[in-house]
Amino acid sequence: MDTFELGNFRLANGYTIPNARLAYTTHGTLNATRDNAVVFPNFLGGNDAALEMYVGEGMALDPNKYFVILPGQFGNGFSSSPSNTPPPFDRGAFPPIAIADDVIAQHRLITEHFGIERLALVLGWSVGALQTYEWAARFPDVVTRMASIAGAPRPSPWTLHWLRTVIEEPIVTDPAWSNGFYAQASDVQAGLRRQGHCMALTLPPLAYYHGDLMQRLGFGSVQDFVRGFFEGFMVGQDPNNLLIQARKALTADPAHGGSLPEALGQITAKTTIVAFTGDVMFPPQDNELDARNIPGAHYREATTISGHLTTFGLFPEDRQAVDDAIREALAA
Amino acid sequence: MDTFELGNFRLANGYTIPNARLAYTTHGTLNATRDNAVVFPNFLGGNDAALEMYVGEGMALDPNKYFVILPGQFGNGFSSSPSNTPPPFDRGAFPPIAIADDVIAQHRLITEHFGIERLALVLGWSVGALQTYEWAARFPDVVTRMASIAGAPRPSPWTLHWLRTVIEEPIVTDPAWSNGFYAQASDVQAGLRRQGHCMALTLPPLAYYHGDLMQRLGFGSVQDFVRGFFEGFMVGQDPNNLLIQARKALTADPAHGGSLPEALGQITAKTTIVAFTGDVMFPPQDNELDARNIPGAHYREATTISGHLTTFGLFPEDRQAVDDAIREALAA
Repeated sequence: MDTFELGNFRLANGYTIPNARLAYTTHGTLNATRDNAVVFPNFLGGNDAALEMYVGEGMALDPNKYFVILPGQFGNGFSSSPSNTPPPFDRGAFPPIAIADDVIAQHRLITEHFGIERLALVLGWSVGALQTYEWAARFPDVVTRMASIAGAPRPSPWTLHWLRTVIEEPIVTDPAWSNGFYAQASDVQAGLRRQGHCMALTLPPLAYYHGDLMQRLGFGSVQDFVRGFFEGFMVGQDPNNLLIQARKALTADPAHGGSLPEALGQITAKTTIVAFTGDVMFPPQDNELDARNIPGAHYREATTISGHLTTFGLFPEDRQAVDDAIREALAA
Repeated sequence: MDTFELGNFRLANGYTIPNARLAYTTHGTLNATRDNAVVFPNFLGGNDAALEMYVGEGMALDPNKYFVILPGQFGNGFSSSPSNTPPPFDRGAFPPIAIADDVIAQHRLITEHFGIERLALVLGWSVGALQTYEWAARFPDVVTRMASIAGAPRPSPWTLHWLRTVIEEPIVTDPAWSNGFYAQASDVQAGLRRQGHCMALTLPPLAYYHGDLMQRLGFGSVQDFVRGFFEGFMVGQDPNNLLIQARKALTADPAHGGSLPEALGQITAKTTIVAFTGDVMFPPQDNELDARNIPGAHYREATTISGHLTTFGLFPEDRQAVDDAIREALAA
């Protein structure tokens, strides 16, 4: 993982993070014409490995062909985050971040550091898609193609309620959270595990609970699945970092308070939107409406096993569906 | 509301509640042949008013025709409950209750107090349906007809996880709960409200969040709906009482550890099973499987607005769907 120094980085809300930094990983080589770069921002709680399963020889994101940049978002624990910023901006005092702040920092990375003028593709899912829409709306001259996979320009009303109830509330009501000034992340693990319980309740399609899908993943029971997969995903996280990520999602809006259809109407990137059947977080019908507002956008609903969890690539069929979507976006 | 004194009531788990009591309400008159009685147990958090909207002149449960008994369940705050039982069985020390305990107490009410030998119908939804299945399996000679509306003989794996995550966890992780020995229920209202938040996330079909259904109910926003309806439903409840009700649902099993299909196969009541489209708590496909195991059972999926919330009767169409289901059950 590399680090791009942003210096004193002024946020949209007026706070300035001293010596801010953006962690990033790259795969492949930037070609001589500097037109093969792909920016692939991450989702809430995501790490590089979660995206790297979609980068590889023979896959859509083939590093022999593309220069793939995985830019860390603020609050991911590697880029400037509550967990790694010194006082007085540490932990519970780390300022709120906007999706636009992420994208502006990423834009600086690709222009100032790599000297890239146009990106072949910006893509992402979930909170990664929120960043993707912001990229396309904010930097139309840079983004040649964009892809939203299981995403949206901003969360739906249900998804906003999900972010508050599943991500924020279990943390801030855990007494060990101490207004963000716990000694170590694992002190707040009761809250983290409760996040996992709520995720298990809301994200897997009901088929997970009624068929043998959990067994296919190696879990013997619902209890094992909840503990092994969802608690396992959460207990490695830093609670304040998750709050920062959730709160940026809560305020995501590429129209910045203006008309969303108008903002989407000004996107010039060749746009691919793929939704997954059974994704309650970013439902297909919403995706279809977004696509109608973007000139020339291509929309497709893909039937997968795992709904919003598809991008986790738990099943070969899910991984294939995501790779297909990326291939489609690159060919646009 | 009336009270039936059960004396020292021995539970299935070995504890004996001293001077136990069952609160109940009746509508209509028991006829001379004592064959017009309907038993209508309640759901988790339910009160008499929630059922009484389905009892009335011109409705299926017409008190001019039927003698409708609404038997309180243990833990509802009127029947023996954590909130109303003196030490040493008070509050956090109230013993766990099984669905079978409820049904045995209700059976004593109708036989010992009313002298009823056969019931025209036992019906219920959700936890009320859990009681209904127990009635039909335990007292086949008494139950002429049974109806499960948005219910099941036992909760699905998802629903078990729901009971733990949405009902138990927000209470027991609220420091004010104090292992069940809080001074007053409202001390634990942060936990109660969090229950409401999780309910709002999991129970309304997504259409509530995407159309004008909340507006039709008089709520201006998701926030208003969550606070006005779901927090409003929860803050009047007693936390320990809810735990007792949730834990009896968690262990519901009319087969008592044996084969469920076999237990269902021995039901002799004329059985009506109505499921609601979009009910994640008791999904139609599960209901259909249950019906196949019960000799002569009639199964129907009804398309309603509100999924598992249909029985709340928030919309006239929902109320009608429930009344139709009851009418069908009475005609069986």
